[in-house]
Amino acid sequence: MSFVDHIRRCNNYDRARAVPLFVGPQRVGFVRRDNAQALRRFPDVFTVADDKVELAAHGDPDAISRAVDQVVDALVIEKQIPKTRYETFDVATRWGAPPLFRLDRGAVPFFGTRAYGVHLNGYRRDRNELWLWVGRRSADKRVAANKLDNLVAGGIGNGYGLVETLIKEADEEAMIPPDLIARAIPAGAVSYRMETGLGIRDDVLFVYDLELPADFVPQNRDGEFSGFTLMPAAAVLDRIRSGTDFKFNVNLVVLDFAVRHGLLPPADPEYIDVATGLHRPLD
Amino acid sequence: MSFVDHIRRCNNYDRARAVPLFVGPQRVGFVRRDNAQALRRFPDVFTVADDKVELAAHGDPDAISRAVDQVVDALVIEKQIPKTRYETFDVATRWGAPPLFRLDRGAVPFFGTRAYGVHLNGYRRDRNELWLWVGRRSADKRVAANKLDNLVAGGIGNGYGLVETLIKEADEEAMIPPDLIARAIPAGAVSYRMETGLGIRDDVLFVYDLELPADFVPQNRDGEFSGFTLMPAAAVLDRIRSGTDFKFNVNLVVLDFAVRHGLLPPADPEYIDVATGLHRPLD
Repeated sequence: MSFVDHIRRCNNYDRARAVPLFVGPQRVGFVRRDNAQALRRFPDVFTVADDKVELAAHGDPDAISRAVDQVVDALVIEKQIPKTRYETFDVATRWGAPPLFRLDRGAVPFFGTRAYGVHLNGYRRDRNELWLWVGRRSADKRVAANKLDNLVAGGIGNGYGLVETLIKEADEEAMIPPDLIARAIPAGAVSYRMETGLGIRDDVLFVYDLELPADFVPQNRDGEFSGFTLMPAAAVLDRIRSGTDFKFNVNLVVLDFAVRHGLLPPADPEYIDVATGLHRPLD
Repeated sequence: MSFVDHIRRCNNYDRARAVPLFVGPQRVGFVRRDNAQALRRFPDVFTVADDKVELAAHGDPDAISRAVDQVVDALVIEKQIPKTRYETFDVATRWGAPPLFRLDRGAVPFFGTRAYGVHLNGYRRDRNELWLWVGRRSADKRVAANKLDNLVAGGIGNGYGLVETLIKEADEEAMIPPDLIARAIPAGAVSYRMETGLGIRDDVLFVYDLELPADFVPQNRDGEFSGFTLMPAAAVLDRIRSGTDFKFNVNLVVLDFAVRHGLLPPADPEYIDVATGLHRPLD
């Protein structure tokens, strides 16, 4: 692996392998061609052409969500979608726009609608060296089990705001108290478009940095992490460069942290490609 | 103006209006079609086709540089290129690769070869507020006269390294002493591709941050700045959002600073477009 390999891996989307999903005139997703074929059986909900999928269901967001959910249910039974049944994501034309409908989180890659997450780099400064708190994902996580992760990370579910999600996840995942998480600094967004076994992930991750006091030790309470380790940031970078110990998208979040804090020197031959590769332009 | 308008302005490159410049199999520039036509008169140096320009001159970098320079001289006489005659930029397939030839700085947009610069955000922290040192460009600057600028900014000329350029420009432009500039932190790269009156600017700017002590006041010694002002970062952002007081690319560097330091809140409707728009992927 190299740093850029991680970026390429998260941007392996190939437009020839997917068709756009439209709601009226607006594109809201990318459906892999095999997934699009599977939608032909539901002509009341989706109109499938060779070059696009269009939402055929009409009505308000609740009505559309119910219609789409019936399709999702049918595909869950056929094991084409791993439904989570406990969390929905808004589907909209852009961040902050009124949601057109809601989608079970497990079905998001099937339709390739944009998903938003929040990732927190929890760090300490010690004798001019930066250290990162690294979480290990639980063995029973559906995605990236046992992989290393940021201190806090979570998807922004329907009905939750960005800061609200950060505060909630910081409490559940690492028991970061409200007065401490309030000091987190928003530091940008990492974006990528990736084909996975399930479809297309079109993700935007809001990135926060939080400098932690020496006496803070994270503890997980929701079972999503099996533990935490405080690692020198330079050692984290070495692990990223040499392998896939970290969850696929967490490599990108940590690289963004490394670039912003001067941990990756401009003399590194990959510097420009990393600095310009972590922020796929949205379309 | 909006924040995103500044990004669009620096990325107004339209591939239909230019053709690639090749050296052997490798693209090294983008020549606007009218500029490409002007090169047809120099068949010993450039081969001009409808869809590309190829370097025809052979030899080592010195020989190629001399051949290209004769073309540049002819075009300078016709006022198609504003030759600077005091600074050359390396032309290479990528940052750090051996230079194929050198080009007068004034001719770089004509050939659309990639140029590299270094920009320094000089800031102060005062009562939890961030302030930015802002320079005003001299009235006699050829590009963006009288516009506001970063504290230090300069192109990376042939024979100078990145850090060497930063140290040199910090001394000449703002009299930042060596022990102070040594604390500057590399914080990423801003990239854009822009059509100007002269051709195509395909620029990568290495960005540095430097926290300055309260007793530091910049002084210019090379005549490139007419003065400096310490401004609250929030006021700088307001000016960027409302107009074009700042040099075109400096808007992008300051927006990058604002995103990284949490000055631009994620709730801003332009947040994602700014955070993902400052780093045009290289090709």
